[in-house]
Amino acid sequence: MIQRLCVIGVGLIGGSLARALRESGACEETVGFSRFESNLQQAERLGVIDRYETEIARAVEGADMIVVCVPLGAIRSVLRDIRGHIAPGAVVTDVGSAKRCVLEDARAAFGEIPGFFVPAHPIAGTERSGVEASFASLFRDRRVILTPVPQTDEDALARVRQMWQATGAEVVAVDAVHHDEVLAATSHLPHLLAYTLVDTLGRMDEHAEIFRFAAGGFHDFTRIASSDPTMWHDICLANRDALLTVLERFQGELGRAIDSVRGADSAEIKALFERAKRLRDEHTPTDSVDGN
Amino acid sequence: MIQRLCVIGVGLIGGSLARALRESGACEETVGFSRFESNLQQAERLGVIDRYETEIARAVEGADMIVVCVPLGAIRSVLRDIRGHIAPGAVVTDVGSAKRCVLEDARAAFGEIPGFFVPAHPIAGTERSGVEASFASLFRDRRVILTPVPQTDEDALARVRQMWQATGAEVVAVDAVHHDEVLAATSHLPHLLAYTLVDTLGRMDEHAEIFRFAAGGFHDFTRIASSDPTMWHDICLANRDALLTVLERFQGELGRAIDSVRGADSAEIKALFERAKRLRDEHTPTDSVDGN
Repeated sequence: MIQRLCVIGVGLIGGSLARALRESGACEETVGFSRFESNLQQAERLGVIDRYETEIARAVEGADMIVVCVPLGAIRSVLRDIRGHIAPGAVVTDVGSAKRCVLEDARAAFGEIPGFFVPAHPIAGTERSGVEASFASLFRDRRVILTPVPQTDEDALARVRQMWQATGAEVVAVDAVHHDEVLAATSHLPHLLAYTLVDTLGRMDEHAEIFRFAAGGFHDFTRIASSDPTMWHDICLANRDALLTVLERFQGELGRAIDSVRGADSAEIKALFERAKRLRDEHTPTDSVDGN
Repeated sequence: MIQRLCVIGVGLIGGSLARALRESGACEETVGFSRFESNLQQAERLGVIDRYETEIARAVEGADMIVVCVPLGAIRSVLRDIRGHIAPGAVVTDVGSAKRCVLEDARAAFGEIPGFFVPAHPIAGTERSGVEASFASLFRDRRVILTPVPQTDEDALARVRQMWQATGAEVVAVDAVHHDEVLAATSHLPHLLAYTLVDTLGRMDEHAEIFRFAAGGFHDFTRIASSDPTMWHDICLANRDALLTVLERFQGELGRAIDSVRGADSAEIKALFERAKRLRDEHTPTDSVDGN
């Protein structure tokens, strides 16, 4: 049971976490902090937080669970700002989409990675942002990945695990390097491709007509290009090495696919499409949507 | 009002068309033809067609509307097979996803493009295939693009237009070359990218874990990679020139995006993502889905 939850950055993720913990009765009081007071007023109005503070030191005061829900690029300065104000026995965790950089941030802010700091990444979200978009069931049946280090306190790890389990998520722990490689492939690469595709089409002369004749398949494919540009900018830079590795691999495979089309290499094209369909069907739940 | 509809290739599209026309009362009788009798038996059992023929000449006999719903690669031979069996006054149309090649097929099969042949492309579908996946509302509020040529018969054009309007679709007519360029960008390119992405990830050592940690955003992005490989192989080859043009354009833009990530060019990355989000939000209906 969390006595006082402090959510730093009350947006889609922070707001949904606060809602989920309140709904499940896992949290007694929620205090919010954000750079913008209007955002905090809105969060209070929506009943997402009980109260807010406009000074970060006051916000974390007396909290036994501090969750940093700001974009990756802002985590280091938040950790620096709260250092010295964290109550004894309190746990600090984050929700960043890349984890090696967050460990670096913790080391930079605290001198070493403190035992009470538990890096975490809930694999959930929508392409929308802001506390208005938050909802309590966002994490239900989703995975949350914790990336503890050897010095991570066992009790702190257990408390973060329990917090996420209370939201309905399945919690797993993996190495931060491995997390970053896997997420680069499944999430960061697709986002970069979707942004690049939409931008490519937007630069074409017929772009108005192109978007007009786009069907369901295109909308699904490019939905993630509606995601928050700042957040994804931060992720791409924070996980640059792992992202570059999969980007270059994809670039190579795309080059080969283009060669197959250019050479009208029927067998190669069919083999590629068949392999991909088999993999996709094997690894994903049955779903259906209008496309073309 | 269609007296006798002949559907050649009773799969997702042909089956859905037959269902929609029956439901709207726009068709008196539906005869099916397919390479496989088991498929026709299934279509008859499902009530999609009234009866079937196992000889294509018999199937088109006496039909006033003949719709060719086979993969692009099979259209030419179908047109050759039905030549000489088409009733006077009958209209022939298709549903192929590329149109210049279909005009070539008609020219090859008939010596010239006949006035009674109306090339058409319903921009609708799902990643599933087969008559079992067909449903009457597939074309509702979707666009159907007709690509008539100067010699296309006015009456034939009007009858194909009315047929599609009876399914609830919005019908437009454009030039075949223009159709192929626009569809290469909005449909053929995304499919090739989705297939290539899934295949790239499938070749990585950690692929089991990669797919395990994939979230909603990834599933949406790759849904079209579950589409029928044969159909998409045919489309990529049939619309090769237009597809290559957008592929190379995308490849260039991707190269620039990779350079930006490699050089940690913060301003470039943010500008790219912001342009893409703006375009996507401007041009697509509001929708939301779980991603990450």
